[in-house]
Amino acid sequence: MFLSKVKITLRKSILDPQGKAVEHAVSALGVKSVHDVRMGKYIEFRVEGASEAEAKRATEEVCKKLLANPVMEDYHIEIEKV
Amino acid sequence: MFLSKVKITLRKSILDPQGKAVEHAVSALGVKSVHDVRMGKYIEFRVEGASEAEAKRATEEVCKKLLANPVMEDYHIEIEKV
Repeated sequence: MFLSKVKITLRKSILDPQGKAVEHAVSALGVKSVHDVRMGKYIEFRVEGASEAEAKRATEEVCKKLLANPVMEDYHIEIEKV
Repeated sequence: MFLSKVKITLRKSILDPQGKAVEHAVSALGVKSVHDVRMGKYIEFRVEGASEAEAKRATEEVCKKLLANPVMEDYHIEIEKV
């Protein structure tokens, strides 16, 4: 059994209005040292599989077909044996 | 300048209906090896600061006051020098 940890981030070239809103809110809280906030998604799930390579293949398939929008988003996968 | 990478996850004891919905969708796609999907948020931002400890303090403040709901969510911080 493996644990897949997936980070989905907007591509650098895509504007992130949600991140901008958070940046303003942070500044309004009084923290002025924070800039360039980018919001993304984080997904964790368990994958059955004989090997890490197999778990990675399943995770990539799920990312490409369902979790990430390949036009606007990048994904980053970490696999951990559990 | 530091880059803060924050993962926000629902606490284990909190039900995650969004994760359940993704799990069903993954299964409907034909991938049967994926279980226990948990959805979270991923936030990246730059922090000005003299030291990693200072950047971490600012990041923790932002997490506690704004990004995470401490009743339902946990946060995990990574700081990277950039």
